[in-house]
Amino acid sequence: MKLVIIGGLSGGMTVASQFRRLNTTSEIVVYDKNPYVSFANCGLPYYLSREVSERSDLIARTPEQLKNQGIDVHTEHEVISVNDKENYVTVKNLKTGDTFDDPYDKLIVSPGAQANEIEAVKHAPQSFVLQHLHHLDLIEQYITENDVKHAVVIGTGFVGLEVSEQLRKRGLEVTILQHNERVYSTIEEEFSEPIKEEMDKNGIRLELNSEPVKLDGTKLTLNNGEVIDAELIIQAIGITPRTDFLKSSNVVMNDGYIPVDEYGLTNIDNIYAIGDAIETHYQHVPHKKVSVALAWPAHRLAYIIANHLAENDQYKHDGLLSVSILRYFDVAVGKMGLSLKDLEDEDYIIVEQTQNNKAGYMPGAKPLSLKIYVDKNTRKILRASGIGEKGLDKRLDILSTLTRLGGTVDDLINIEVAYAPPFSSPKDIVNMLGYKAIGKL
Amino acid sequence: MKLVIIGGLSGGMTVASQFRRLNTTSEIVVYDKNPYVSFANCGLPYYLSREVSERSDLIARTPEQLKNQGIDVHTEHEVISVNDKENYVTVKNLKTGDTFDDPYDKLIVSPGAQANEIEAVKHAPQSFVLQHLHHLDLIEQYITENDVKHAVVIGTGFVGLEVSEQLRKRGLEVTILQHNERVYSTIEEEFSEPIKEEMDKNGIRLELNSEPVKLDGTKLTLNNGEVIDAELIIQAIGITPRTDFLKSSNVVMNDGYIPVDEYGLTNIDNIYAIGDAIETHYQHVPHKKVSVALAWPAHRLAYIIANHLAENDQYKHDGLLSVSILRYFDVAVGKMGLSLKDLEDEDYIIVEQTQNNKAGYMPGAKPLSLKIYVDKNTRKILRASGIGEKGLDKRLDILSTLTRLGGTVDDLINIEVAYAPPFSSPKDIVNMLGYKAIGKL
Repeated sequence: MKLVIIGGLSGGMTVASQFRRLNTTSEIVVYDKNPYVSFANCGLPYYLSREVSERSDLIARTPEQLKNQGIDVHTEHEVISVNDKENYVTVKNLKTGDTFDDPYDKLIVSPGAQANEIEAVKHAPQSFVLQHLHHLDLIEQYITENDVKHAVVIGTGFVGLEVSEQLRKRGLEVTILQHNERVYSTIEEEFSEPIKEEMDKNGIRLELNSEPVKLDGTKLTLNNGEVIDAELIIQAIGITPRTDFLKSSNVVMNDGYIPVDEYGLTNIDNIYAIGDAIETHYQHVPHKKVSVALAWPAHRLAYIIANHLAENDQYKHDGLLSVSILRYFDVAVGKMGLSLKDLEDEDYIIVEQTQNNKAGYMPGAKPLSLKIYVDKNTRKILRASGIGEKGLDKRLDILSTLTRLGGTVDDLINIEVAYAPPFSSPKDIVNMLGYKAIGKL
Repeated sequence: MKLVIIGGLSGGMTVASQFRRLNTTSEIVVYDKNPYVSFANCGLPYYLSREVSERSDLIARTPEQLKNQGIDVHTEHEVISVNDKENYVTVKNLKTGDTFDDPYDKLIVSPGAQANEIEAVKHAPQSFVLQHLHHLDLIEQYITENDVKHAVVIGTGFVGLEVSEQLRKRGLEVTILQHNERVYSTIEEEFSEPIKEEMDKNGIRLELNSEPVKLDGTKLTLNNGEVIDAELIIQAIGITPRTDFLKSSNVVMNDGYIPVDEYGLTNIDNIYAIGDAIETHYQHVPHKKVSVALAWPAHRLAYIIANHLAENDQYKHDGLLSVSILRYFDVAVGKMGLSLKDLEDEDYIIVEQTQNNKAGYMPGAKPLSLKIYVDKNTRKILRASGIGEKGLDKRLDILSTLTRLGGTVDDLINIEVAYAPPFSSPKDIVNMLGYKAIGKL
């Protein structure tokens, strides 16, 4: 059996190595259009400030290690089309410009997504996105060679925020632009206020309702007429699934995203898809579709696909809760469940609680705020979100576990937390949310 | 309706204030044999080093606040017997020696447990236990007045460990005695090794297989013949439910513990019991009995009892998972589920995993070890335990939530953690335990 994998990051490469463990004889070929594979893309921003101290720490597996695992990796090779009738991919060697066809028995589509860019700045030498290891190298090189003192980050999604934090910690002046008034719109407006405060506190200049319209050298003109200095520009304005190459195939797509079934299969019975380009559904609200461009879902689905390739169909994908978290300087913000938009047609009550993350008399106790959206009929938590300096990740994990297991707010009061004064309270915030929700329903 | 409550800490006092919220007219009378009520007993040790900086931070509610809530508190009043036929308690005023009877309509028994003491040292002026606020005051006074430089802590349960840590952090020389070879026997032997290392690292002298046999001034003779200096002795060798006063009543007890039903009721239909002196069962293994002398269960049952008193029977107690955690200097150890002894007749496999608490390339990533005991038939987690510098509480909370909701190791692989490099890994340790368990079963 010959397995061809398009994309050598969290999705594709995890399938490769998981399947290799289950099957030592099949041929595994990976094509990736970028120069590097198998690195920790979530960790890239943290190298900018040397919070991750060594670039090599970001490499999960080297090409040699992959070769020794019997995984045949071709970097700078872009798959430009898929022929699902005759089972081959057409590949362009980006170094030589040559194209060739390569047949497969099973195909894994893990192309990821492309960072969006703004026409006014995208062609400038100082303009970058940060998705891949070579982007990081280019940014590093540019900062060093040009002794960059001031950076402009465009976009306040999680990449924009992480990059702004890291460049600031590196010592650069940082301006961050948001095209409207909503910073980190993944999260409720009230929880984005503390993010703005962190910017203020840390000397990051936030420009709301600002879009670049013209770049002249390092002079960036904004839509409000203001001209700012832009020695370095990092664009972080969202992503688009990189699935154009599938248009010539019969793989069904939905707005560029590839729907997959419980085994990660597309509509074609020997083509799987995984990673940022797929569309799945919420586990707790199965009729609603969701795409989650994060590493956790890719790793999980990789396991399911690898097993299915090995003819073990006991593991099934049953949707995602779309849990995410972001650290921004001293605060963490995060959410579980439906997006704010997906909540719109639901019938819910809102319950909020703010209390210390641990016993209030302990040093370092910090206020933590959580908000849950509870379905009026099922009493399940549709969405939870929150902010705090400490302990948010723990509570999102509790709520995620409860929700995945089908729990309701009635179960919330009985969640027995590991309590000692350095860790929590005898009435933890998740318990209190349960009491409040029951009272309100 | 007149409610009499025996014991004014987590159990009894929480019933009092919860019930007061639900019912503003009933008379609520609390008797406590100790001088103070409504303080954070879990926090007491942390004042010894001033980690909790103010004694007043340990006071939950003052006598005035309680009075304003309409809760009539009598401290230094010991209930010495209960007449459940005629519905009255006999109370001894410890200040005057007088006794009197007080009738009740409903009675809450929350007497707590008594710290055990060793005959050879208990009568010495420098010997203390640490259960109540006045014990803390006595210890503080003794240390100050006698300029204590060296303390002996007897016992390596959680109180002994917390006290040894706190006295050491205060700057005292500390020797800790354990009568056998097992330090913190709540936890697996391999997880107690790092506790010993913390003692070593922090200059605490551990004496195993050591029991005090004679005290002469400050010279303490151990069973091995060694004589050590003992200017201050803190005994922390376990507790016994303080239920002797019930012997004359018809309240059923089991080895001194009071079994309660789903509403916290004893066998007598107007007598409830709560706190360290009760016996309940494991939620996930209901045929096994357990007593958990911690604040979380007391707070939870207080809510159920208060509602039941207010004629709302929708909340029910369905057992405990017995989750506990202890911080000792730089490490945390903890467990969920069956005790090691209660595991003995179960049919399980053991799965272990050690990995970093978050992405390994992030600074401050620390190894975390978890061990789960999985029932071979139900695939449920009977017990989980672990050790680590960071993130143990979060994983115990996830496992506790999963187990309470009836989850199995098959669900473990799908627990969607809040992932970003500062918080966890795309394959969190709980996911990995799931993969390993499934492979092994």
